[in-house]
Amino acid sequence: MAKYTIGLDYGTNSVRAVLVSVANGREVATSTWTYEHGRQGVILSRDPNLARQHPADYLKGAEITIKAVLKAARRKSKNFKASDVIGIGVDTTGSTPLPVDADGTALALKKRFANNPAAMAWLWKDHTGVAEAAEITALARRLRPHFLAKCGGTYSSEWYFSKVLHCLRTSPKVFDAACMWVEIADWIPAELTGTTALDKLRVGVCAAGHKAMFNSQWGGYPDKRFLRKLDPKLAELRDRLPAEAYTIDKPAGRLTSDWAKRTALPVGIPVAVGAFDAHLGAVGAGVGPGTLVKIIGTSTCDIMVHPARKPLADIPGLCGQVEGSVIPAAIGLEAGQSAVGDIFNWFVNYIQPGGKTAGSHEALTAEAKKLKPGESGLVALDWNNGNRTILVDQRLTGLILGQTLYTTPAEIYRALIEATAFGALTIINRLEEYGVKVRQVVNCGGIAEKNPLVMQIYADVTGRPMKISRSGQTCALGAAIAGAVVAGSRAGGWSSVRAAQKAMTGLKSRVFEPNPSAHKIYSELYALYRQLHDAFGTGEWSGGCHNVMKRLLEIRAKVR
Amino acid sequence: MAKYTIGLDYGTNSVRAVLVSVANGREVATSTWTYEHGRQGVILSRDPNLARQHPADYLKGAEITIKAVLKAARRKSKNFKASDVIGIGVDTTGSTPLPVDADGTALALKKRFANNPAAMAWLWKDHTGVAEAAEITALARRLRPHFLAKCGGTYSSEWYFSKVLHCLRTSPKVFDAACMWVEIADWIPAELTGTTALDKLRVGVCAAGHKAMFNSQWGGYPDKRFLRKLDPKLAELRDRLPAEAYTIDKPAGRLTSDWAKRTALPVGIPVAVGAFDAHLGAVGAGVGPGTLVKIIGTSTCDIMVHPARKPLADIPGLCGQVEGSVIPAAIGLEAGQSAVGDIFNWFVNYIQPGGKTAGSHEALTAEAKKLKPGESGLVALDWNNGNRTILVDQRLTGLILGQTLYTTPAEIYRALIEATAFGALTIINRLEEYGVKVRQVVNCGGIAEKNPLVMQIYADVTGRPMKISRSGQTCALGAAIAGAVVAGSRAGGWSSVRAAQKAMTGLKSRVFEPNPSAHKIYSELYALYRQLHDAFGTGEWSGGCHNVMKRLLEIRAKVR
Repeated sequence: MAKYTIGLDYGTNSVRAVLVSVANGREVATSTWTYEHGRQGVILSRDPNLARQHPADYLKGAEITIKAVLKAARRKSKNFKASDVIGIGVDTTGSTPLPVDADGTALALKKRFANNPAAMAWLWKDHTGVAEAAEITALARRLRPHFLAKCGGTYSSEWYFSKVLHCLRTSPKVFDAACMWVEIADWIPAELTGTTALDKLRVGVCAAGHKAMFNSQWGGYPDKRFLRKLDPKLAELRDRLPAEAYTIDKPAGRLTSDWAKRTALPVGIPVAVGAFDAHLGAVGAGVGPGTLVKIIGTSTCDIMVHPARKPLADIPGLCGQVEGSVIPAAIGLEAGQSAVGDIFNWFVNYIQPGGKTAGSHEALTAEAKKLKPGESGLVALDWNNGNRTILVDQRLTGLILGQTLYTTPAEIYRALIEATAFGALTIINRLEEYGVKVRQVVNCGGIAEKNPLVMQIYADVTGRPMKISRSGQTCALGAAIAGAVVAGSRAGGWSSVRAAQKAMTGLKSRVFEPNPSAHKIYSELYALYRQLHDAFGTGEWSGGCHNVMKRLLEIRAKVR
Repeated sequence: MAKYTIGLDYGTNSVRAVLVSVANGREVATSTWTYEHGRQGVILSRDPNLARQHPADYLKGAEITIKAVLKAARRKSKNFKASDVIGIGVDTTGSTPLPVDADGTALALKKRFANNPAAMAWLWKDHTGVAEAAEITALARRLRPHFLAKCGGTYSSEWYFSKVLHCLRTSPKVFDAACMWVEIADWIPAELTGTTALDKLRVGVCAAGHKAMFNSQWGGYPDKRFLRKLDPKLAELRDRLPAEAYTIDKPAGRLTSDWAKRTALPVGIPVAVGAFDAHLGAVGAGVGPGTLVKIIGTSTCDIMVHPARKPLADIPGLCGQVEGSVIPAAIGLEAGQSAVGDIFNWFVNYIQPGGKTAGSHEALTAEAKKLKPGESGLVALDWNNGNRTILVDQRLTGLILGQTLYTTPAEIYRALIEATAFGALTIINRLEEYGVKVRQVVNCGGIAEKNPLVMQIYADVTGRPMKISRSGQTCALGAAIAGAVVAGSRAGGWSSVRAAQKAMTGLKSRVFEPNPSAHKIYSELYALYRQLHDAFGTGEWSGGCHNVMKRLLEIRAKVR
């Protein structure tokens, strides 16, 4: 009797449900639904830093996509029964916190706040809290440097407390009406299981640890004295924050009868504690000690794990180091590049080079493929959206260097790909410098699957084979794996994440091997990339250019 | 009785004749003819550094265009008679030297060498002599530093001796067959006047001084001992080089009866000593002490004069300082930017941004005009074709910095315009640092006339009014002015260049005044431009990035 779990993957524009066979990870049915609110699910304003989502979309999307995959599975196999679904897992974007009342009801679902963006979910890419992030970073640097040591030295404007504090400062009515702020990674499983109330809510260590400085070493969330210095109301909020945070092998609760009715799933099946898409994506790609999983999309997330029993230094410039954030009993290491596919998309969609026909990704890739490494004389920095790792600085911008009067769009396109590869290598080097050996690299995401040139350049630049995850939906698969683990082996699931991964994940047969001669040239080019990286990205040596990009942004802010 | 002179302007792709009224500079008739040989007059090869011209084109072009302007003038006015033409002036590209035999016959016109590119004119932009230029520079730096002090510290691959020495090394048969190498600025007037033979040839101080290190202070051309160290055959050539070099107010000779027959011009009218297009262009734009003339085309030439009686230091980084090279009794100062219009053309023609319709110069200019200074957050370097002044370094390349995921083609286009304006300001600043006060800036060339946005940005960046020359053909007008001066006042011409300029040149009424608030922002942006300029362009401070562009070019040369 085959058993199944469902992975619910909440992205920026849509939610995807994937129904997975617990035995082998086969994806039986998939359904996606684009959020209704805003522009493709994102509510914008005149402030370019603002990006919100309406929580109603999360609930409606769960119902629609779950029903759709069940229907599709029944269509495919007459033997399939919804009662063979034994668990659910959820992954989401993050940090995407949402203000809720004491019952855990999202404020945005109440009439009073229905159209107030401050009462909605503050999407990961909302940067309205830039000033608050700087304030938190400065305070922590002075009083709690150990907080920052676990998150790359800078607390980001994308993260929980920056957003909460910005709301407190700019929309006090919303802040005062909120009893709590819950990451949607926690809120959605709680909604499915009727555990949104403060006394029942189980939050995941992934979101809490990576975005809200939760660490059991210092007693969970940041202490009240620290938060009081930011604002007394934050200290009051601290009293309502949970004391515990959980790994994905723990259930958030059990599916309510209401949700069972709405979806036709069995009542009471466990829903795993939620986690972020990249972290569960790494699980779905087979992450384990020594394996770097790169999830390459518009940006990248780079995920590794390090056994919790082995010592590990704080790695400067990494986005986060959180025990249990990926798999239990291992420190989850998160790094990333702020833009990868987005840089290629910028060039194709904004610059539109080569006229309409010659400027598609396909055409530029075909032309760029003909070029040899170093042949263009170009080198670029991959900072069009700032630098997440290892500089942790959003106020950095792009750079292209080496143009002549004959430089072609394909040369620039290739230089942009190479820039992202150099950025990837910089992350690998940083991990290894601090003793986290990278024994294999597994890529997933659309670019990894669809653009062999990108993968070959990554192999040539890093000098390492590039492997591709078998699943094209590793995030949802990772969530389904969590669902299989919380279901447990007695129900036909698995007893551990490791066991579930072994059965349910795999690699594609095609491996991109590095070409030694290309790697040699790229090593020379990387030295130049690194020189520019340090000159523009760090203030470490006098005479650098670290001020240039920031001055331009200051001038721009002044004249706009 | 109105008198006329003809200016012959030899460009890269075509020759233009302009028939000008001596009284007021009015351009009565114009004719252009595109050279027949090669690709639009330029003979190319697989070596991208090679660019030659066939001298037959110069002679045929003179005949065709002179006949055409006389015909057009007769059509316009029944009173016009060819006998009212009292003189001719010639300007050409340069350094464009040509090997000739003892009679001054171009080797390329002989059957034996008819198809040998080495026997043709080595066009200004021929860079085959890069290695020889480096050799000459190194030798001069060691033994004759004063040679380099007058030409910006580096002897260019574009210049006379680099080309002659390269021919000696790579095409010894041509070199051995040549008695002399003559700049086309000297050879064309000599052909018109039958003075090509070594004992009759009069060379201009413009070409000799700016491109062949001729200086009366050290006895004319470089001394034999110096040239012998480069090659003994160069020392032998030195014996055949003329002892004198002349200013444009001196005749090269008088029109031969053969040329009078071919053109219907009066026999015996004087032809002025030739000079380069930029220098005569400055004359045609009204250059005099305190006036900077900018000739803005694909690249720019910036010309000033400094009274010979007033002391002047050697100005580092200037292309040349040569007494009499522009007007008599004044030191001609030549600076320039290696690419201006060419950078905009690169973006439009190679990158083709915005699809076919949105990417024209007109469309990008219209969009770029809507932007405020500093609004794009971009800054660029104008080095896609190297830097002629003040760094004198062809091994520099372009740089664009500050891109985000939303940067538009118009923002980049404007940043490229601004980069060339910053380059222009850098030249002005260098001149003033060395005591050459710039009291007014007169622009000419297609971009100055046709793109008000460029002129406004130049005004805003430099904080100076931008004036435009009245004539759209200042080079040919300058040549016609030289023709009027060698004709002399008795024949109805003028007694001096100054007097002729006063009568024959002028400015347009529209002046681009700097906007103070834009200038303030641009002063901040210029500080960043200058920081990048020094970081990438000079090795003056440790920790700079001066190696980056050169290393990329080395790697590129290696892999190609």
